[in-house]
Amino acid sequence: MTTDTSNRDRVFIFDTTLRDGEQSPGATMTLEEKLQVAEVLDEMGVDIIEAGFPIASVGDFEAVVAVAKQVKKATVAGLARAIPADIDRAGEAVRHAQRGRIHTFVSTSPIHLAHQMKKTEDEVIEIITKTVGQARNLIDDVEWSAMDATRTPMDFLMRCVETAIKAGARTINLPDTVGYTIPEEHFQMFKTMREKVPGAEDVVFSAHCHDDLGMAVANSLAAVAGGARQVECTINGLGERAGNAALEEIVMALQTRGDAMPFFTNVESTHLSRASKIVSAASNFPVQYNKSIVGKNAFAHESGIHQDGMLKNAETYEIMTPASVGIKATTLVMGKHSGRAAFKDKLRELGYELGDNAFQEAFVRFKDLADRKKHIYDADIIALVDDEVGSSSDRIKLVGMEVVSKTGGVHTCNLTLSIDGEVSAVSYEGMGSVDAIFSAIKQAVGQEPHLVLYAVDGVTGGTDAQANAHVRLEMNGKIVSGNAAEPDTLVASARAYLNAYNRLLMDRGASAQGAMAG
Amino acid sequence: MTTDTSNRDRVFIFDTTLRDGEQSPGATMTLEEKLQVAEVLDEMGVDIIEAGFPIASVGDFEAVVAVAKQVKKATVAGLARAIPADIDRAGEAVRHAQRGRIHTFVSTSPIHLAHQMKKTEDEVIEIITKTVGQARNLIDDVEWSAMDATRTPMDFLMRCVETAIKAGARTINLPDTVGYTIPEEHFQMFKTMREKVPGAEDVVFSAHCHDDLGMAVANSLAAVAGGARQVECTINGLGERAGNAALEEIVMALQTRGDAMPFFTNVESTHLSRASKIVSAASNFPVQYNKSIVGKNAFAHESGIHQDGMLKNAETYEIMTPASVGIKATTLVMGKHSGRAAFKDKLRELGYELGDNAFQEAFVRFKDLADRKKHIYDADIIALVDDEVGSSSDRIKLVGMEVVSKTGGVHTCNLTLSIDGEVSAVSYEGMGSVDAIFSAIKQAVGQEPHLVLYAVDGVTGGTDAQANAHVRLEMNGKIVSGNAAEPDTLVASARAYLNAYNRLLMDRGASAQGAMAG
Repeated sequence: MTTDTSNRDRVFIFDTTLRDGEQSPGATMTLEEKLQVAEVLDEMGVDIIEAGFPIASVGDFEAVVAVAKQVKKATVAGLARAIPADIDRAGEAVRHAQRGRIHTFVSTSPIHLAHQMKKTEDEVIEIITKTVGQARNLIDDVEWSAMDATRTPMDFLMRCVETAIKAGARTINLPDTVGYTIPEEHFQMFKTMREKVPGAEDVVFSAHCHDDLGMAVANSLAAVAGGARQVECTINGLGERAGNAALEEIVMALQTRGDAMPFFTNVESTHLSRASKIVSAASNFPVQYNKSIVGKNAFAHESGIHQDGMLKNAETYEIMTPASVGIKATTLVMGKHSGRAAFKDKLRELGYELGDNAFQEAFVRFKDLADRKKHIYDADIIALVDDEVGSSSDRIKLVGMEVVSKTGGVHTCNLTLSIDGEVSAVSYEGMGSVDAIFSAIKQAVGQEPHLVLYAVDGVTGGTDAQANAHVRLEMNGKIVSGNAAEPDTLVASARAYLNAYNRLLMDRGASAQGAMAG
Repeated sequence: MTTDTSNRDRVFIFDTTLRDGEQSPGATMTLEEKLQVAEVLDEMGVDIIEAGFPIASVGDFEAVVAVAKQVKKATVAGLARAIPADIDRAGEAVRHAQRGRIHTFVSTSPIHLAHQMKKTEDEVIEIITKTVGQARNLIDDVEWSAMDATRTPMDFLMRCVETAIKAGARTINLPDTVGYTIPEEHFQMFKTMREKVPGAEDVVFSAHCHDDLGMAVANSLAAVAGGARQVECTINGLGERAGNAALEEIVMALQTRGDAMPFFTNVESTHLSRASKIVSAASNFPVQYNKSIVGKNAFAHESGIHQDGMLKNAETYEIMTPASVGIKATTLVMGKHSGRAAFKDKLRELGYELGDNAFQEAFVRFKDLADRKKHIYDADIIALVDDEVGSSSDRIKLVGMEVVSKTGGVHTCNLTLSIDGEVSAVSYEGMGSVDAIFSAIKQAVGQEPHLVLYAVDGVTGGTDAQANAHVRLEMNGKIVSGNAAEPDTLVASARAYLNAYNRLLMDRGASAQGAMAG
């Protein structure tokens, strides 16, 4: 993917939701969730999907292979440290893709060299030559990253970049690993590289920004102004610590301000809202109301003056339309009398194309919901389709539950579970109804996972909203999330807890030293 | 507050959490909450607190007066449209402050002039002269804002700014009202104003950025580089649509990157984490996990490589310490045997100084919680102190509740309420337990508010977490929020609903045409 001079204003979007995003504490996704995220990314026109870090675990490797096999248009990248085994493993995973890429990285900053790597500059140069060369022997499309580039002296960084280009890297990524840079500085770094490094004209430069100081998007766009033509980002700005630059903000900033920034991406922006919802559900990271582009309030106008202006001319207070990011007014059309055809139409309108089995399962859940709930909103259907609860591989299943909750009294839960096929009943009294439910489950299963997070939100407005429950559990260093959507908050809470618990018990393969660059 | 040449690198922090922040749909705060927010802002060294829009309603006026009387160090500003009655009302409110400011604004962009104001440029110039002059007759400290400045042609904007300076404005604010600008452009706008407008050297220029394209913080800092010496921002980036620039990000960016941006603020950063929690509780806007500086994950390191580096030297992956923003490790020290002195010490450690009555009430709630809950975490105490549930002015009170919830069956709620002193019992069967509770309350009170939002989160880790419930209700165009913290999720949900309902019934004064500039 070398820079095409006929196309020099195109910015390639490299999405790392499945790699840097998924390594946010608590954001672990299942294979099915990763495939769902990859699907929407591919559909919306993302150029490169970083699917994971193949050496990190068997689960990570298998996820990269599965994504590579599924993706139709995008390049699929796998991450590798500057270690021969990492690079081989990444090559093994991405060779299943129509277009695969190995993304290898090494630290270049003095603080990383001195404290973490204990290597000299000359040793790092040698490592770059060897590892990029090894990757190029496996595949044509190789990306090299200078970890902590923004805290690396320019002279040494130029030497590293030149070495990587000579060794065959086609994309040179200069990550702001710790979220330290500011736009002017970032612009200058890319401009210097483009102007001074021999061979710079033959590669694509790439920015990878973190939001620790709240400037990831502006820094990414400054990099583009300085000559970068790839931006690494994530849906909802998911990622380590304060996260990565948000894909939706990068795309909409370029689309809205084409006058000041004459660049374009291949992303179809009307998928952004749906992608945000899918990633939020998969990662169990709620999106804050005032999040740019995809927050609930992003297009809401409260003040009288703004509302008055909006009625007179929307452009007085709106620089982009909700429709341009795929936000539709909530429509109320589905109910218990809706049939298969109407349901399929509605799914298509919401952007879903399900296979026969998945459609059948979703339809059953829809009818079940329609029996219990008068109004079915779009958001209910999205929750229902995105909801992966109760898959056949679950070891623990909820058979029945009765909870009695009383102010000033104890809260009692009578619970029946099926554990590996054996039915077991248990009672528990707790300080709160949810506490009683979770304690009853723990007692029945006989293990003590630590509850890291418990949250519920109503999917739609209206009293008969479905409750969406989120649970995060930790046991032996493994953190998993579970969620469930149900009309009843307590049942949703129990199912979300079981969903997480089943994931804890799932064998995802031995974990290697961990994830991450950038 | 004219620029002091001995102090030219100081950036004044103008917080508008109580005005632009509070006008986010659903973020309405009570008077008590506003005073609590004003207190932490004043303590942390914010220079100017915009306390509200006095003409908007009696409630708004009274809030500005109360904040003006309470605040010890900061200047207190009140907002006014370019209308004589607005300016008088703002003057009346802020004269109670030790240092008061009238902040008046008018639109300057062609699209606002043509569609919303239906005025010519000459008419706008005349309005500026009159309104700024009127304000200066009431008070010395007058700020003038050019609404939608970033979409105003430079020539006309310069004419407006010159007019405002001549009429006596001491601060000139150039808001990016619709979140449209980019850093380089914003820098140039301020630079041009500073260099070309007669009298520019005698005033403070101010930036007010919105985050629609994710660049509010970078744009604010670009304005400072261009000569602005006041930044308008909010805690947690609360505000219309995608919100305003986040105060905590501005402050920490300047503190962390003093090498590249040689400016400083007077804000003591160790208050940031607490301020974020107080504003999140008051507004009922949860902070997303990956929010910069104040998100739960902002200082969390997941990947093996990052963790390895952190153990070797924290600076490998950390550009600021959690302690610098006031984040403490959760400590577990309080329990049912803790006495008054220990509780007072703990409150002080968490940054609270309560009056005798408030302390007494908090201590009673603490003992009550300690009876029901084995471990009391810092977060529980913060929730307990911040929780304003059950104030004596409430018209509806919860006397008792029993809920029976069953998978596959109906969910029944038996509820006893006291409504204006009369006790009333009601039963309801719903599709879900929370649905039954909310429906029972509506039936007992006899009105039909619309449920806009329902959410629960566990305050701390551990099974015996307190549940924090949030409810947002809408009736006749009025949107209010309620919250409650309780060990039981259902009781917390009922109390949060009642908390919101009581606010709906509160007479906050007739609402004028609405809020807002910026």
